[in-house]
Amino acid sequence: MPGLHRVPFDVVEKTLTASLIRHGFSPERAARCAFLFADTTADGVYTHGVARFPRLIKMISLDEVRPEAEPKVVAAFNAIERWDGQRGVGNLAAWAAMQRAIDLSTQFGIGFVALGNTTHWLRAGTYGRQAAEQGRIGICWTNTLPNMPFWGASDPVIGNNPLVIAVPRKAGPVVLDMAMSQFSYGTIEAYKLRGEQLPVDGGFDTEGNLTRDPAAIEASLRPLPIGYWKGSGLAMLMDMVASMTALGLATHQLSLDFLHESGISQVFLAIHPQAFGPDPRVNQLADDIVASVHNARPTKPGTKMRYPGEKTIAIRAENMRLGIPIDKALWDEILAL
Amino acid sequence: MPGLHRVPFDVVEKTLTASLIRHGFSPERAARCAFLFADTTADGVYTHGVARFPRLIKMISLDEVRPEAEPKVVAAFNAIERWDGQRGVGNLAAWAAMQRAIDLSTQFGIGFVALGNTTHWLRAGTYGRQAAEQGRIGICWTNTLPNMPFWGASDPVIGNNPLVIAVPRKAGPVVLDMAMSQFSYGTIEAYKLRGEQLPVDGGFDTEGNLTRDPAAIEASLRPLPIGYWKGSGLAMLMDMVASMTALGLATHQLSLDFLHESGISQVFLAIHPQAFGPDPRVNQLADDIVASVHNARPTKPGTKMRYPGEKTIAIRAENMRLGIPIDKALWDEILAL
Repeated sequence: MPGLHRVPFDVVEKTLTASLIRHGFSPERAARCAFLFADTTADGVYTHGVARFPRLIKMISLDEVRPEAEPKVVAAFNAIERWDGQRGVGNLAAWAAMQRAIDLSTQFGIGFVALGNTTHWLRAGTYGRQAAEQGRIGICWTNTLPNMPFWGASDPVIGNNPLVIAVPRKAGPVVLDMAMSQFSYGTIEAYKLRGEQLPVDGGFDTEGNLTRDPAAIEASLRPLPIGYWKGSGLAMLMDMVASMTALGLATHQLSLDFLHESGISQVFLAIHPQAFGPDPRVNQLADDIVASVHNARPTKPGTKMRYPGEKTIAIRAENMRLGIPIDKALWDEILAL
Repeated sequence: MPGLHRVPFDVVEKTLTASLIRHGFSPERAARCAFLFADTTADGVYTHGVARFPRLIKMISLDEVRPEAEPKVVAAFNAIERWDGQRGVGNLAAWAAMQRAIDLSTQFGIGFVALGNTTHWLRAGTYGRQAAEQGRIGICWTNTLPNMPFWGASDPVIGNNPLVIAVPRKAGPVVLDMAMSQFSYGTIEAYKLRGEQLPVDGGFDTEGNLTRDPAAIEASLRPLPIGYWKGSGLAMLMDMVASMTALGLATHQLSLDFLHESGISQVFLAIHPQAFGPDPRVNQLADDIVASVHNARPTKPGTKMRYPGEKTIAIRAENMRLGIPIDKALWDEILAL
């Protein structure tokens, strides 16, 4: 890819950390936040890692993200808590909320944190992976700006609300991270930049016809929900659960302006599958299910089935060996931030 | 519709109750089970109500469903429990499991029950509605027989695993009840019986081409997951969470034979949104989100947006007034059971 070069993981981390400190972060929070950016890009989720760093800095300058604001516990009742994110840094708040859900699951078998008034958490899968790496089933989702129409409507009132389900497994977690639109805006943008059509219909054009043209979908702001009416309904319910438990803003109460994506609502759920006592059958079932998928007969001979999150392993290994691929112009921009 | 007639709700209930008692149910369990069948048909979910009654009786005669087996608590740890359904009656076990999750949420703010070794719960939405009517957010899902291929595979190793999310609301709950296939087999069958094509692609034919022909999908056993690879991944993760927490069977360990759909795994989650104390803002948010959907601009002028579960209200009112519509041949069959 032209303009792409590779930067060692620790150089990315140190560069972002220094920039964040210059923008008002304490050293410890800067290091944690920088790690999450670099980690996402190292895992190959290029749309939601370092590429988003300039937007965070911009939002700090607009006072939409407050560098030192810590989430605050607003209410607590045994295994559930309600937090106010105070428009702090989205990935740090999400990490803290999932960690609290994990700790609650140690005590109660399950833990739930609803986080309102927060900002973009960047890669959704990060927080599922966090739970799975600590032996928990992690489930989390966020609402978003109103970036998708309800099924049958033309104006966007629901969000593409990414959903994560992550399951622990000794050989490596299984991590599903999916938006409720058939393609995230990040993916639509990536296809457009490559001059490619989407592999299946991804939305409507401004005339209301289904299309695979990424530019037409960006123009209409009408991405297709997964499963048509089904993903539309699921996005609505995810918005209800997140905003009602967090007492935060619902999607339709937010405006469609990425630089002002502040005040969103998220939920974090951790289930402790070994809370009843250590049991090797839990991991065995995970391995058996993965094997059943790997062994399924492919429609195209010679292709391999991959479980959600599996691709990450090889991509990460390569990126840690060769350096994290970052667009040269982006890296130059970041060096100046 | 030819052959359709209407039977009053209480006649349906009494008829099914009497039949269940003849097949080994105690009067109380028979009445509860009959109610759930009649209730589903009254709500307009014709594929999963009274129409399934003969199959239950058949499965009892095959000893796949044991009329008097009660679910047993295998392990408990604060807010979570693991149950063995002992291959009892699926809808009774699911009702009991969700009720326990609700009770746990009273105590802990959230409750979770994993139920293994159970049988078909019939209408999934029943248990979400049960939670919502008690002021809880209800989330539940089941694994199923291996009735859907993993994305990229031709043989079925995952299930279409219905997912339910229900939210309480004073004016009536919002209940999402959706299978991970674009169309449930029940819906595919209904289109075939009406001689209609599906409104969008619903699966593959035996040649591997996407098709709207319901008969072709029944022949190939290759329904399309919602969102292609996305629904496939979600179904896999739902199977993992259910089987790993219940220590029950995973989809690939079951055989594709509806009369032997025994030993499946389910999860029931109840969240108490008012656990921190009564707060009118919770219901207000639910109403606001519903209003935002109702007020969205329709793509076809004059059409109305409906939230998941909304259709049920009018259908139920009509069915309670006029009687529950049941195919005449089916009703005659039930009278003889």
